[in-house]
Amino acid sequence: MLKKYLAIPLLFISLTIQAQVKDSATIKSIYNEALVNGKAYDWLSHLCYDIGHRISGSPQAAKAVEWADSLMQQQTFDKVFRQECMVPHWVRGKSETAYMVTDTEKQPCAILALGGSVATPSGGLKAPVVMFNSLDELKNAGMAECRGRIVFINGKMDQRNIRTFVSYGHCVGQRWAGAATAAKKGALGVVVRSVGSSTDDYPHTGSMGYEEGVEKIPACAISTLAADRLEAAMLDKQPDEDVQFFFEQNCEMLPDVKSCNVIGEIRGSEFPEEIIVVGGHLDSWDVGHGAHDDGAGVVQSMEALRIFRALRLNPKRTIRCVLFMNEENGGRGGAKYAELAKLNKEKNIAAIETDAGGFTPLGFTFSNDSSKAYQVRLWKELFPEYQLYDWEGEGGGADINHLRDQGTLMIGLSPDSQRYFDLHHTNADTFDKVNKRELHLGAAALASLIYLLSEYGVGATPGKF
Amino acid sequence: MLKKYLAIPLLFISLTIQAQVKDSATIKSIYNEALVNGKAYDWLSHLCYDIGHRISGSPQAAKAVEWADSLMQQQTFDKVFRQECMVPHWVRGKSETAYMVTDTEKQPCAILALGGSVATPSGGLKAPVVMFNSLDELKNAGMAECRGRIVFINGKMDQRNIRTFVSYGHCVGQRWAGAATAAKKGALGVVVRSVGSSTDDYPHTGSMGYEEGVEKIPACAISTLAADRLEAAMLDKQPDEDVQFFFEQNCEMLPDVKSCNVIGEIRGSEFPEEIIVVGGHLDSWDVGHGAHDDGAGVVQSMEALRIFRALRLNPKRTIRCVLFMNEENGGRGGAKYAELAKLNKEKNIAAIETDAGGFTPLGFTFSNDSSKAYQVRLWKELFPEYQLYDWEGEGGGADINHLRDQGTLMIGLSPDSQRYFDLHHTNADTFDKVNKRELHLGAAALASLIYLLSEYGVGATPGKF
Repeated sequence: MLKKYLAIPLLFISLTIQAQVKDSATIKSIYNEALVNGKAYDWLSHLCYDIGHRISGSPQAAKAVEWADSLMQQQTFDKVFRQECMVPHWVRGKSETAYMVTDTEKQPCAILALGGSVATPSGGLKAPVVMFNSLDELKNAGMAECRGRIVFINGKMDQRNIRTFVSYGHCVGQRWAGAATAAKKGALGVVVRSVGSSTDDYPHTGSMGYEEGVEKIPACAISTLAADRLEAAMLDKQPDEDVQFFFEQNCEMLPDVKSCNVIGEIRGSEFPEEIIVVGGHLDSWDVGHGAHDDGAGVVQSMEALRIFRALRLNPKRTIRCVLFMNEENGGRGGAKYAELAKLNKEKNIAAIETDAGGFTPLGFTFSNDSSKAYQVRLWKELFPEYQLYDWEGEGGGADINHLRDQGTLMIGLSPDSQRYFDLHHTNADTFDKVNKRELHLGAAALASLIYLLSEYGVGATPGKF
Repeated sequence: MLKKYLAIPLLFISLTIQAQVKDSATIKSIYNEALVNGKAYDWLSHLCYDIGHRISGSPQAAKAVEWADSLMQQQTFDKVFRQECMVPHWVRGKSETAYMVTDTEKQPCAILALGGSVATPSGGLKAPVVMFNSLDELKNAGMAECRGRIVFINGKMDQRNIRTFVSYGHCVGQRWAGAATAAKKGALGVVVRSVGSSTDDYPHTGSMGYEEGVEKIPACAISTLAADRLEAAMLDKQPDEDVQFFFEQNCEMLPDVKSCNVIGEIRGSEFPEEIIVVGGHLDSWDVGHGAHDDGAGVVQSMEALRIFRALRLNPKRTIRCVLFMNEENGGRGGAKYAELAKLNKEKNIAAIETDAGGFTPLGFTFSNDSSKAYQVRLWKELFPEYQLYDWEGEGGGADINHLRDQGTLMIGLSPDSQRYFDLHHTNADTFDKVNKRELHLGAAALASLIYLLSEYGVGATPGKF
């Protein structure tokens, strides 16, 4: 009798071990394909050099749509299609100028208008500066301190966090809400210290928001180097002296234009109605190449599906590469994807976003369902040899987060973050900053996790595998 | 009675937990100091831009010695001293030229003489090429294939290994032994494909050795891009056609010169006779800045000790920053350190080497004593929040390996290796390739491990801590 009771567990263990052996072999072949024959790096070179940066609504964004569509058609995915959506169309106009004036000198400052900002008055805006060390400090300030002045918010990224996204999260509020907060106190304009981790002369642009009923004042980011100089001038001056700041920017918000998400799909052989998404965003800021943000994620997502084709892996579940439009300044593409998924009663069981740079991947983050995430996190044991160590973090991604209400397990690819905020939203985010092996390791990590998700789904599988 | 027996283990557990809390807090303060006030990056800037590359025997190597000595004196370490040793003095001479000639074209090729190579005959060497895909293939070749020819060894780094040092290890033999192996078969010269992981036009130099009694033929490394072109020409040609290769190099080996290791020390408060070494090598190849190899290791090692001073950590055991001379082409500094340690009956209980680039550290490797390593590896549990995930690997380092016979636990800092062999031994190994946070994380990892080693030693401590 004892033997009989033992038989089922033993059979199960045996099947589990066989599955692990097969899965390990498949993952190995995925990594080999990415590292030896990977196409993502060459694709990214084209996107960066032949198309360039591609803010929503720009001609380059339209070119990127055509390029991605055509490239995925060439990969003979089962289906390539688009999802139309209207996107904001903000333009920078001619480049910005700025300088600071103290009693003794006039110094040019590197700035970039924040995305969505209004222009300065024609001829520029010049006013005395009032400095705050954080958005909170500004919030607590009185009207008298700010009225008629240019508010300089000088919050610095905390270097102590190992994961730089944590510091970014603590600091990005000054960029988003600085203008509205300052306007309520009568300020004429706002200059925010770039949310960047290095000290250099590249300003970091990024999205900002105005508030209904609050005056729209112009907002720009100043490079960390220039912010340090401005800070020094403010600390050096006598109480009765002023430091003046001048900036001129000619940006404007034009009417929304039509754009789209671009989607490639390989249909599942057993559970085609269960969909696994992998994606990044096709738009970028209008500076640099948008190489790491998020050209890297775009080419990694396409590469993940290419690897399935190259290795003739037939996924049991449907896998989709979704290239979202307008992550940077509106999130309209992500919203549209989720809206249509709901409308079409799709079952997006899992979605993986890659939008943290094409650096060496170190793991995945999870959100939205702790029990499903628990099970998927157990697969970590297949990955130490690939340096995918960290599966504990929380998080999904800005585009896939729109699927939150639909029970989708949301997953983020988590690369090493040390270099990201040197480049993020700057003219320095160019192709030469991307390492081929690092980029391709990210694609392999994505393809491997998609493979396991396509084999086992989420939540419904007995045991680990 | 039961209570009495329980008392000791409970007390021990309580002390262990207290120790962990204290250790965690100290490690946190070490990381904060490195990330907020770290000096390594600025020091490296000076080493790279104001001194430059610094091959053994060069004026720059002598300048680097003075600089490091003076800088460590400024840190008020307890003792700064030098260990004299004789080092080889190989000079490249004026820069190399090379080209390949097919039936239809003459193409310039980027080369670097291998370190230690003889010059070509005056006016250069020109001969038909014979190509091999590995050193082993050359070893198996007949004399007739090689005689009167230039041997081209085209072994490629295997892209499939996640840890690039593994691929390097498989491939570096062609650089070291290519010339002697080819000379035995009557070749006139040898051209080796650069042992590098990217396809570009930077040749990778590196050490090579001749054999006693075998003719010394000139040897150079060719860039991977030029190697690909030469390979294509060899595969395209008709069997009766030749591809000719020309190269001229003017390098020579001069008499040995006097140089030294530079050592800074903080004396242990409880067990001063037990020494913990942290070190990198002060010399570099004579190209680029020697920024990652091993400027990074030099400044990280000094920074590790600076952190102890800055935080007023009094180590129980003596800690030493050892800047080894001549790792690249002789290892004389490493040998001298071990020789003097033996002579002086020193007890070097552990030695950590940082010579794998200033990239994000991911763990440590260990060698020489599995029981001691087992215990130290348990400390890993203090480090997941610092991304030091991998403590399983084997290995120490070229300089500290000379201590093998003295019972020293040898440890290597193990950073992410994806980018290292794009830069290694090339003109591209420059300061701008180093990221400040990545570099400082390495220094913090070293200081943290040294702190634990200085508190607990190796092997003799009951329990984990």
